[in-house]
Formats: sequence, structure tokens, C-alpha cells
Amino acid sequence: MNTESPTPRLLLQPKAWKRFAEGAPWAFSNEIQMDNAARKLAPGTLARLCLPEGEPAALVHFNPHSLIAARALSREPDHLAAGALPADWLEARIERAAALRARLFEEPYYRLVHAEADGLPGLVIDRFGDIFTVQANTAGMDRLLPRIDAALTDRLGATAIVHRNDSATRGLEGLAEGIEVARGTLDGPVTLRENGALFHADLSTGQKTGWFFDHRENRAFAARLAKGRSVLDLYGYAGAFAIPAALAGATRVVGIDRSAEAQVLAARSAEANGVADRITFERADVFQYLERLETPFDLVIADPPAFVKNRKSLKQGLRAYAKLARLSAGATAPGGELMLASCSHLVSEDAFLEACRQGLKEAGREARLIRRAGAGPDHPLHPRLAESGYLKALFFTLD
Amino acid sequence: MNTESPTPRLLLQPKAWKRFAEGAPWAFSNEIQMDNAARKLAPGTLARLCLPEGEPAALVHFNPHSLIAARALSREPDHLAAGALPADWLEARIERAAALRARLFEEPYYRLVHAEADGLPGLVIDRFGDIFTVQANTAGMDRLLPRIDAALTDRLGATAIVHRNDSATRGLEGLAEGIEVARGTLDGPVTLRENGALFHADLSTGQKTGWFFDHRENRAFAARLAKGRSVLDLYGYAGAFAIPAALAGATRVVGIDRSAEAQVLAARSAEANGVADRITFERADVFQYLERLETPFDLVIADPPAFVKNRKSLKQGLRAYAKLARLSAGATAPGGELMLASCSHLVSEDAFLEACRQGLKEAGREARLIRRAGAGPDHPLHPRLAESGYLKALFFTLD
Repeated sequence: MNTESPTPRLLLQPKAWKRFAEGAPWAFSNEIQMDNAARKLAPGTLARLCLPEGEPAALVHFNPHSLIAARALSREPDHLAAGALPADWLEARIERAAALRARLFEEPYYRLVHAEADGLPGLVIDRFGDIFTVQANTAGMDRLLPRIDAALTDRLGATAIVHRNDSATRGLEGLAEGIEVARGTLDGPVTLRENGALFHADLSTGQKTGWFFDHRENRAFAARLAKGRSVLDLYGYAGAFAIPAALAGATRVVGIDRSAEAQVLAARSAEANGVADRITFERADVFQYLERLETPFDLVIADPPAFVKNRKSLKQGLRAYAKLARLSAGATAPGGELMLASCSHLVSEDAFLEACRQGLKEAGREARLIRRAGAGPDHPLHPRLAESGYLKALFFTLD
Repeated sequence: MNTESPTPRLLLQPKAWKRFAEGAPWAFSNEIQMDNAARKLAPGTLARLCLPEGEPAALVHFNPHSLIAARALSREPDHLAAGALPADWLEARIERAAALRARLFEEPYYRLVHAEADGLPGLVIDRFGDIFTVQANTAGMDRLLPRIDAALTDRLGATAIVHRNDSATRGLEGLAEGIEVARGTLDGPVTLRENGALFHADLSTGQKTGWFFDHRENRAFAARLAKGRSVLDLYGYAGAFAIPAALAGATRVVGIDRSAEAQVLAARSAEANGVADRITFERADVFQYLERLETPFDLVIADPPAFVKNRKSLKQGLRAYAKLARLSAGATAPGGELMLASCSHLVSEDAFLEACRQGLKEAGREARLIRRAGAGPDHPLHPRLAESGYLKALFFTLD
């Protein structure tokens, strides 16, 4: 095991130091002088990253095998001089993130830590009351998992913690993938409250970390449009759009998803909220469903999985977004509203808007944009990392 | 007076027809074949704008003297074939806009018509219950004012209508500027409700159309952050950020503005909401106030007037935004939040974010972005007119 004292020193490249020095949260491997000593450092080592002339710029988590080789943890002069983080640095960052959420939300159901944008690069934590899911996407954060679990238990009263280390990005850091209940026990799905409704989420087998908190405010906005109207919820997953819409007075909601497991949870949540009589969950492929649909809905929600997963599939993915826009516009009644969303981080908001415009034009529909939004405030953005704004939701009103 | 029958026919330029044909709401004067007949048309004439080969593309309001020479009113095949809009076209558009707002808002206080994005190019209408302000920014809409007033009276129950035709853009269309109570009477300021508070607005002498409905959702978000905290409201105008923050439980609110008239209204509104004891309104220049400020606030709101009013002042205006970011970051306590906003339509969101980052860096503060938003849904966007998204609000949480 490598020792972290004294803290290794790394130098930025003479021709590529500026971006990081100006505040970028990452240094790429080609921006760092990769000598033999650097190459031999264990993934996740705490290091001091310095300007080419030697002046320290930041303490970082370093991984010589990753394209994103260094991720800034602190630039505070005291920390740089000491070559170490304060003993409770990690715990203080988690508490700072928790304090922000406590200001924003009345109930403890939210993304607690959103990686770089909470000063904890690579770390994602979702909170479901006293139950937490943790995802460590870097070697540095993976090493800290025992301390993270302890902080969640001691400072935030965690009774159960699930490590959702099943993200593909772990592979880029040389880490194994897996799901594990690290503390306490999980007896089936957990419950959470969002937008005035109660939901069930499966933290151990569900998609991502078990729940998509990111759309919370878009769901609230959709519910504002739902009163007295028929609603179609495409890719409805566990009912997070459908159920608040029904509670807001939708006359009829149809939720479409391919996952049988998600629909079981959604139906259970609809029951718990007393709106099961107005919601139908149908298991189907969305494109096939739309192609055979005859009667349009007043409000259509289309929140698909990422159609663009890598640069090679960009063009094809944009065509799929345009097709979804065309078909779902066809499913929207005159004077109705349509939400189109993308969670592909490789697709810019402008490119997504253009794909939507194309689809609307192909459908022969004029539209006006009444809301464009990203994820909610529990998913902050690092100001120098615009890409972290992966979620794009566009609400159109159609002629 | 020019007769509108038969509807004049205009041709797009052979090399510049595509943008408009693809759905852009405007054709610029250099995109239109400006022969003598076209040049002689009266400003505001209803015309049929056609592709270079003659196929009709849209019915437009045409003004040969304006850079934005044609503004699309309808592309519906029936209307193109008839060369005329249906008799109740204008009234139907206003009712469509009203129906969207009725879905979105529980009370009748909002921007009712937002120009191109509501299919009524150049027309802006704000609603304060039964009282309306109308601004016609094109010759075409100016001609329609009597019908607009009649529609507001007959279909939406207007008891008073103020023509706020004091916008500088009217000059570009060759129209005179002026403010006039066109129907009913105004006895001093009107009242409106927003974010659970009651406000007073002066429709005949206040800025813009009398009230800035655009920030409604940003004000609601700011109020979520205000409980138990001290709040500084820079450029506070009539108290629309300050009063909901006080109602949400702010310990102390200071509102800064240079307008004595606005502060009288703000103080009156604070009184009406029972929070006058917790709000101090101070008349001052914001930069001077910030330079002498000693004790920071937990939440700082900085919503200045447009610093960039034309392309020539872009660089200087961006420097002013950076300076405001630096000084207002200095006024924000550690762990506090700061909203920075720009309503300069010539400043892109990216350029504004960069100016804010610079100011924050000069202030020596690290920050994370917890919300970036534009105007609320009563200010929709035309999907082919991204510039109409003039408002940018960035909420940062500061270390």
C-alpha cells in the first residue's frame, strides 16, 4: 500500500497549465508531466499539483491510468502549504452539501452530493431519509468509502448505506463494478416523498442510484399543466411524473415503460397516493406505442434514456431525438403541451433544441417554448464544467 | 390610407429565403426583394411573403423602413391561399395566450402576450387583474391597437387599458412614443399578487410596462433560501424579491435602489404584507453602497438594469457585470448564496457566466451554480428566436 506522506508533487505541462490554474476542476493526463515517478503512483493518491515553475496550484486525487488524471480537492493556500487536507475535510464537505439541501428542501429526499459541483469529485450520494446510496466514480473517492460511510452514519444518522458502484465510469479508473449494502439492511424498496406524493424506489436493482431526483422541478411544472387534462407519460419509470400529475387533477394518465419492475413500483405508488383509478401503466416500447396511438393527449412527457452514449452515436442519437419529437408531437392534442428531455451529456442544449425543432416541423406543428430547464438545485454545476449540466428539459406548447 | 385588399405580394431573395422558409419568425430587409412597389407599402401593411419562385410562405406584417422588415403572422395553408387572416385571428391568439396563462397561474397577474412567442409579433401585454398594459412595438401591431383594446375588454373583461408605447424600439418602426390611458381610468398604483405577496405597481410612470413579471420564479427560488437569513436586495425596485424573502422568514432585508418612487411603492407593499419591520429600503447607488459595505449578508440578489444596450457597449458592459459580481460576492457571507442576473439581450448566457466567474475569481471566492434560469413561463420563447431569451439569472452558493 502506498503511503501518502510526504504528499507527492506533480507538475503541470509548460504549455498546458493555464486551464487548470484558472479554476478548471480537472487536469487531463496530457496536461501533466508524466514522469516515471508519476506513472508509478497508485490510483487515487492524494497529490500536490503544481504550476510548471513549481508553485502549488491544488491538492488533487491523482490517477495515472485515467484520462482525467487529476481532480482538484482544494486550492486553499493553507492546505497547499501543508500538503494535506484538514483531518475533517471530507466530513465538512458532506456537511456543507447537506446544509445547502436543508435550506432548499423541506424533506430529506434529494441528491446530497453531486460530485465536482459539491467539491467532492467523482462522488455521488442520494438521500432517502436515513437511507443513502453512494457511488464512487474515482479511485480517490473509492479509497475514502469507509470514511464516507462513517460520516453519513455519524453526522447524518444513516441507518443503511448502499454502494451503487455499478457505473461504467468506474472502469475508466480501473475499479471493479458492483452493488453492495455496506451498512444496515435493505428490506425491499424504500419510500420517499417528492412533489407532495409518496413513492417507492428500489435502491439495489433500480436504474442509476435508484431514483432520478434530477427532474423534480420539471415534474412539479408538468403537474401545474395537468389539471383537467389527459396526460401521457413516456418512459415513465417509477411514476414520478405521472402520480403528481394525477394528484394535480389530471383526468387520465397513461404511463408507458418497458421495465416490468418499474411499473410494479409505479402501480404501488399510485395506490399509496389514492390515484390508481386514474392511472394506467402499460408495458410497451415507446416508439411502437406512439406509432399505433390514435387519440392524442393534452400533456405529453417524453423523458427517454440517453440516446447518445458516445461521440460516435451523436448523429444517430440526434435523429432519434428528432423522431421522438415528431411522434410525441403527433400524440399531443392541438393546444396541448409537450415536454422533451435529454440526459445525454454529449448533446448540447442547442443541438437538442434543433433536433426537437426538426421533429416538430416534420410533424407539421408550430410550437412555443414555455420552459427550458436542467436538473434541480440539488444537482449544482461546477461553474467551469458546463458539461456537468447533462439534463435538458424543454416544455413546448403546441398549436 | 392604404387598402389591404388585395394583399400585396412580396418575394424573398433568391439567395436568402431559406432561414425564413425554415420557420424563422422574421425576414430582414436584405432578405426581401425590395422593388419600388414594396418600398411604397405603408408601414404595418399585411402582406403575403413568398419564396423566390412565388409560392407563399407566410402572411406577415411588413414595414419597408425597418431592418426587421417582415414578421410572420401565419403560415397556415388556408390563410396563405385566402391571402387574409380569419376575421377573429387576433382575438383567437389573445385567447390562446390567456388560456396558457390560466393553466399556469392561479391568479390573473402575468405577462399575457409575449410578442413573437405568442404568435403576435411586436405585441407585449401585461395583466394586472382587470387592468392591462399594452405595448405595440411594430407598425403592424400599432394599427391593430383599437382591435386589441376591444378584445381585452370584450373577451377578458378589461376595465382599464394603458398604452405603454414609450419603448425605444417604436422609433425603429417610425412610430411615436407615448403613454396613454386608452380605456377606463387609473387612480394611482394598481395592486397585484405574486409569490404569495401583495404589491403596488405604477403602470403609468413605472419602468417598462410597470412591473417585471419575468423574475417571478427566481424570486420564489430566492425566498426558498431566505429563511432565518439576512438578505441584501440590490436594484430592488418595487420590492418583488425583498418582500417574499421577508415573508419566508428572512431575519432582515435591505433593499437598495436609486429610484425614490419605487422605494415609496416598495415600502407601501412591505407595510401591506406586515413585514415592514424587517425590511429597510435605502436609496443609493449600488456600486457605491457595495464599496462601503462592511457586514456581509447571507443571501444577496443583484438584478441590475441592462449594462449592455448596444453592440458597442458589449465589452464595457461585461466588465461592469464582472465588477458587480466581484463586489456582490464580497457582500456575501461564507456559505451564503448570490444571485446575479442580466437582462441584456446582447449578452449570451455563456458570456454572462464568464463575466460572473471572473468577478468571483477576483473576489477570491469559490462558487457552485445551483440554478440557472431565464424568465418564467409567461415569457415563452419562439423556438427559432433564441435571442428572445434575454433574461439570465444565475444562483451561486459561495464557499
